[in-house]
Amino acid sequence: MSAEIVNPRSDHTIEGQDGLDSIDPAFALHRGGKMAVQATVPVRDKDDLSLAYTPGVARVCSAIAEQPELVHDYTWKSSVVAVVTDGTAVLGLGDIGPEASLPVMEGKAILFKQFGGVDAVPIALDCTGVDEIVETVARLAPSFGGINLEDISAPRCFEIEDRLRERLDIPVFHDDQHGTAIVTLAAMRNAARLTGRTLGQLRAVISGSGAAGIAIAKMLLEAGIGDVAVADRKGVVSSDRGDLTPVKAEIAAMTNKAGISGSLEEALAGADVFIGVSGGTVPEPAVASMADNAFVFAMANPTPEVHPEIAHKYAAVVATGRSDFPNQINNVLAFPGIFAGALQVRASRITEGMKLAAAEALAAVVGDDLAADYVIPSPFDERVAPAVTAAVAAAARAEGVARV
Amino acid sequence: MSAEIVNPRSDHTIEGQDGLDSIDPAFALHRGGKMAVQATVPVRDKDDLSLAYTPGVARVCSAIAEQPELVHDYTWKSSVVAVVTDGTAVLGLGDIGPEASLPVMEGKAILFKQFGGVDAVPIALDCTGVDEIVETVARLAPSFGGINLEDISAPRCFEIEDRLRERLDIPVFHDDQHGTAIVTLAAMRNAARLTGRTLGQLRAVISGSGAAGIAIAKMLLEAGIGDVAVADRKGVVSSDRGDLTPVKAEIAAMTNKAGISGSLEEALAGADVFIGVSGGTVPEPAVASMADNAFVFAMANPTPEVHPEIAHKYAAVVATGRSDFPNQINNVLAFPGIFAGALQVRASRITEGMKLAAAEALAAVVGDDLAADYVIPSPFDERVAPAVTAAVAAAARAEGVARV
Repeated sequence: MSAEIVNPRSDHTIEGQDGLDSIDPAFALHRGGKMAVQATVPVRDKDDLSLAYTPGVARVCSAIAEQPELVHDYTWKSSVVAVVTDGTAVLGLGDIGPEASLPVMEGKAILFKQFGGVDAVPIALDCTGVDEIVETVARLAPSFGGINLEDISAPRCFEIEDRLRERLDIPVFHDDQHGTAIVTLAAMRNAARLTGRTLGQLRAVISGSGAAGIAIAKMLLEAGIGDVAVADRKGVVSSDRGDLTPVKAEIAAMTNKAGISGSLEEALAGADVFIGVSGGTVPEPAVASMADNAFVFAMANPTPEVHPEIAHKYAAVVATGRSDFPNQINNVLAFPGIFAGALQVRASRITEGMKLAAAEALAAVVGDDLAADYVIPSPFDERVAPAVTAAVAAAARAEGVARV
Repeated sequence: MSAEIVNPRSDHTIEGQDGLDSIDPAFALHRGGKMAVQATVPVRDKDDLSLAYTPGVARVCSAIAEQPELVHDYTWKSSVVAVVTDGTAVLGLGDIGPEASLPVMEGKAILFKQFGGVDAVPIALDCTGVDEIVETVARLAPSFGGINLEDISAPRCFEIEDRLRERLDIPVFHDDQHGTAIVTLAAMRNAARLTGRTLGQLRAVISGSGAAGIAIAKMLLEAGIGDVAVADRKGVVSSDRGDLTPVKAEIAAMTNKAGISGSLEEALAGADVFIGVSGGTVPEPAVASMADNAFVFAMANPTPEVHPEIAHKYAAVVATGRSDFPNQINNVLAFPGIFAGALQVRASRITEGMKLAAAEALAAVVGDDLAADYVIPSPFDERVAPAVTAAVAAAARAEGVARV
């Protein structure tokens, strides 16, 4: 832990020190948690208290009761996002429950702050039913300016997001879907530019039909991809299969113009783009069978579906989800700016146009430095969040969902 | 706003400046809200990210999944309290709804931080049914180390608290009840000491049968008061009345050994203590009819039930809820230390013993400086929160509800 960052609970470090902390620096860093609340106004004396609390606060409450939209001006509502999970699909760990998911939610919260200046609060729910989650989040909504859904397993995540988007007048955004899709699209735009093609000239194959796979497919279609097919464990999701969930049936109807059926490997023959959001391994011959100038985006963590060394033998552009290879597809490139932009203009929702604008802005940061190992900026590129924020805010205004 | 406190949303001040801010400094101070989230660990580079987020965080999640109690060590759960309201009984404003209650909840949250070092998050719920509130809070509970219920109207507040205490293994505390009761008891202990009496020698009359009145009555009984009667708008709550709610019937059975019935004024004749938590006004002749060396605790805000100038004509000790008179009965003397102490030892609940210990510790801060205008410390006395914290932690250990 850095010397200049004070952990208010550092006494725990002494009192509760145990073996894990000395074995693994991740545990030492996590002791006492990774975040805190701070007052942004002084409460040092009677006069301070009479403004920040009674009696002054009563006048502010009364004004909001009369003019509800003032809640955005005089509380932190417009700055704070709930990071909501049920702990059912946490990283690669799966259904580990709400408490065990908290370190990830806290991590997400501090990334919101660090990269987007957005306050975020982890809310890990002790329920997994769609109705229960929707009801609970709707009841919490008055306190928050936005809802970031996180690590909720498919297919429940789709219905939960749809119903909350319908019901609430604040942005609801399932990052595992749309954050991943936005960053993927940005990288693909730049890869296409690098290789002198348009998205319309590309056929992509997505391995994985969970939250990320479905959202990437939809977003690539929105962006005008030539063709895209989604494969699950049983092969390409196509309308001739009898085992499709409603979400997969919808995807089958929207995708796969080429009419491919069969295995992922079969679909890859001649394909321009591989997008892995599934785990598992793609055999080298399948990679070799792709078209010239292919893109391999093997995003599974920690083990990419295609190792970059293999991928580079056949592909023009290689991206992964890992920070130790070039071209990291990292959601932190999107979600802080998405919410910062939406909150800035008090958007009532996050539209397709706002997501596409975010991807454009993210791609544009690369600019003239575009190269095979630089199709997407670094998460630590300080130009990223402001660019995404501005683009999302402008798109919200253009689409009529901004309230200021 | 103080120069050394940075409001990350200060741009709103320029952009959204409107009439209210220039007319009333409470509005100017509230612009953009009063609180923020901060990271307590660094996220400046790839190495930081690999510990605070993936892949390092996954090891911490896995450890908690295997050993659930580690959530207290490696997340902010043990430092953070939800300040939960439904906005039905906010200050003296009544049922103003969840959004309009947020400035109070934020105020509470920053007082938790300032006075107790406790992180707190405002959760204003868009539901008012007892079942709905209980379910919602229970579903949120994995994310928090404690639940502070706030400004929920009686009698629902009693059942909500009881059911949540029953259901959850973290402290649940309705501050409007117990915070007020603890501070009142502390002041009364010192007033009794000043006038050379024990609590057992006192007969008290409480005006108000809401959250505060009921809780004060119960706590005074726990502490060994000689007799106490509660009066509502219809007079003394006594078993011979046919109009009592279950909560009032319970109180009638526990209180009023003297068997008084009739009006508040009648009950005050010869009483040693008046406790006002109701609003309304007590006529001067009723105050005059109290026993010698009486205590008048007229806590209604902003207008005490008995003006201190009148009260001083007849009473030995006068307290109010206002900061501009001596002896302010202010909940901030209790709740930060109560939760800080409970969280420090990871108490599973807040017991009667912990509340009594808090009142003792608070009373003891006054020490040898005891005087008629100093029966309770100032909210800004820096000895208060540490004393309450230590007493509550020790009591939790003594009562077997501490987990560390």
